[in-house]
Amino acid sequence: MAITIAVDAMGGDHGPSVTVSAVFDFLRRESDCAAIMVGREDDLRPLLVEVGQEFGERLRLHHASEVVGMDEAVATALRNKKDSSMRVMADLVKDGTADAGLSAGNTGALMAISRFVLKTLPGIDRPAIAGILPTSKGHTYVLDLGANVDCQPEHLQQFGIMGSLLVSALEHKERPSIGLLNIGEEDIKGNEVVKRAADLLRISDLNFYGNVEGTDIWKGTTDVVVCDGFVGNVLLKSSEGLAQMIYGALKQEFSRNIFTKLSALAALPVIKAFKRRFDHRAYNGAGLLGLKGIVFKSHGSADAFAFRCALQRAAEAARERLPEKIAQRMAAVAPTPTLCD
Amino acid sequence: MAITIAVDAMGGDHGPSVTVSAVFDFLRRESDCAAIMVGREDDLRPLLVEVGQEFGERLRLHHASEVVGMDEAVATALRNKKDSSMRVMADLVKDGTADAGLSAGNTGALMAISRFVLKTLPGIDRPAIAGILPTSKGHTYVLDLGANVDCQPEHLQQFGIMGSLLVSALEHKERPSIGLLNIGEEDIKGNEVVKRAADLLRISDLNFYGNVEGTDIWKGTTDVVVCDGFVGNVLLKSSEGLAQMIYGALKQEFSRNIFTKLSALAALPVIKAFKRRFDHRAYNGAGLLGLKGIVFKSHGSADAFAFRCALQRAAEAARERLPEKIAQRMAAVAPTPTLCD
Repeated sequence: MAITIAVDAMGGDHGPSVTVSAVFDFLRRESDCAAIMVGREDDLRPLLVEVGQEFGERLRLHHASEVVGMDEAVATALRNKKDSSMRVMADLVKDGTADAGLSAGNTGALMAISRFVLKTLPGIDRPAIAGILPTSKGHTYVLDLGANVDCQPEHLQQFGIMGSLLVSALEHKERPSIGLLNIGEEDIKGNEVVKRAADLLRISDLNFYGNVEGTDIWKGTTDVVVCDGFVGNVLLKSSEGLAQMIYGALKQEFSRNIFTKLSALAALPVIKAFKRRFDHRAYNGAGLLGLKGIVFKSHGSADAFAFRCALQRAAEAARERLPEKIAQRMAAVAPTPTLCD
Repeated sequence: MAITIAVDAMGGDHGPSVTVSAVFDFLRRESDCAAIMVGREDDLRPLLVEVGQEFGERLRLHHASEVVGMDEAVATALRNKKDSSMRVMADLVKDGTADAGLSAGNTGALMAISRFVLKTLPGIDRPAIAGILPTSKGHTYVLDLGANVDCQPEHLQQFGIMGSLLVSALEHKERPSIGLLNIGEEDIKGNEVVKRAADLLRISDLNFYGNVEGTDIWKGTTDVVVCDGFVGNVLLKSSEGLAQMIYGALKQEFSRNIFTKLSALAALPVIKAFKRRFDHRAYNGAGLLGLKGIVFKSHGSADAFAFRCALQRAAEAARERLPEKIAQRMAAVAPTPTLCD
């Protein structure tokens, strides 16, 4: 069965110059997939005409007159731009024309629009953003990365369920392990919300590992790490900042003088292998989970390779009918038992 | 005036094998300082006898029969080990025999014992742990790193005040800039506690920069970054984990085969310069702020160089009479004005 992805072709720092070539590459690799490029026809048609022919019906253009700016207020994007490429992309997922949507635009606006258009699944109080981080073993999924900044224990439990099903869908793992991000492994550690969330996760039928600490994320201790969106967002941004600082310093040291530059030349294969190993582009594509439809978010600065990786994740979630699985799972969850305080 | 530091000589992963040589080095460098080595006399005397002579009265031994284990429960350490080297170190600060104390032992036990023995300063609800992180510009102070996991806005405001005074004392900066860790720079971002804390910090007479994000920590945007202890602890541990993963991978790539090993040889001066630049040992020594006395915490795995750096920080805080300054500042703070909700 063909999978159709609606693509916000205008979103991200680079817009069509990245999204178009990424979609070409995606369609060449995934012969069961189709794409609808959503955005200004005048901008897109010239880019699609020549190469696009080879995909025939698998590549379509859907005009949308407006664009949501990267720094635009969420309220403006939601209320005043009903014909934005982001909004129309979500509309196409809603009406079933597309099986999934992808945007590299403003995260806040994408979450607000997706939630408004698609609505949340029964049993899910709040949708969450699930991203992927590299580990020394491979990679791990972390949620929430910033959609929810005042979580209750029940929300963290729901994140655990959604994260488990996401990893099952994308990695074909039967029972992914779930860790709860905390400041110590012992049960007595942490704030009240996290302690109660641990109780809820423990009595769920998830493969709950228990508490994990900040170091465990990079060790790959569990397949999924669950946390409040405030913590997840700080974690994500501080990790990006630290990695940039380390790489920047390494580069600076290697370019200090003629001798260090020569040694950089000698070390080039090593440096390349090292960079390949933690190529964050391969981890691009965060799922907006808990909605009645599939929407993925690409990093705003994604290049064509990174954007194509996100397209493939969105397609895989659609093939695996992720929202239906989350809905079934939530229907099976008995109303949360009240724990003795 | 001489500054005397009480040293928990038994604490940390390495105990006296590190603390003793660090203290020798410290006393050689800081001629106005004295040290009291607290711990088992049988263990310490042999180590101190020979070299220790050169310091005369500046180096003393104070027997304490017990040791708090690195993984020991806080309650056990506090209630059942009244003659532990950690507890006696705090007692010596309390009774004025020492101007400051330092331990590389169990953080939870150190905070509990210090708080129990020394008590908190008037106006401070909760002591906080303030550590130092390297940035691309130099370094920045972050608090709280894990003492308080359910902070109210007033606590974050107090952390701002204490952090500001700590940086003034240790770095001799007049008005250090204070950033509030958040998930976006805009005022509307963040959870309720952080938003209200920003209001309190804005109306204080601190040099309040505003919200900072995870990336700003490593950019060195502000001299101090204030956050809840849950967030700070996750941040600290995940940063340690990420840096270890990156260094580990670099090492692995360089030792893959004979060619990469040769290139490592060529790149050795660069690698050394790079390692020196982010030598975390130089940042060792976190302050337990808000107590009626000075206690610093060394990293458990500190070597003699790192432990000596922490000794110097504790001595500098004592020279600058940090607790008195915090007390004066808190007395000058008008009772927090009630903000309209």
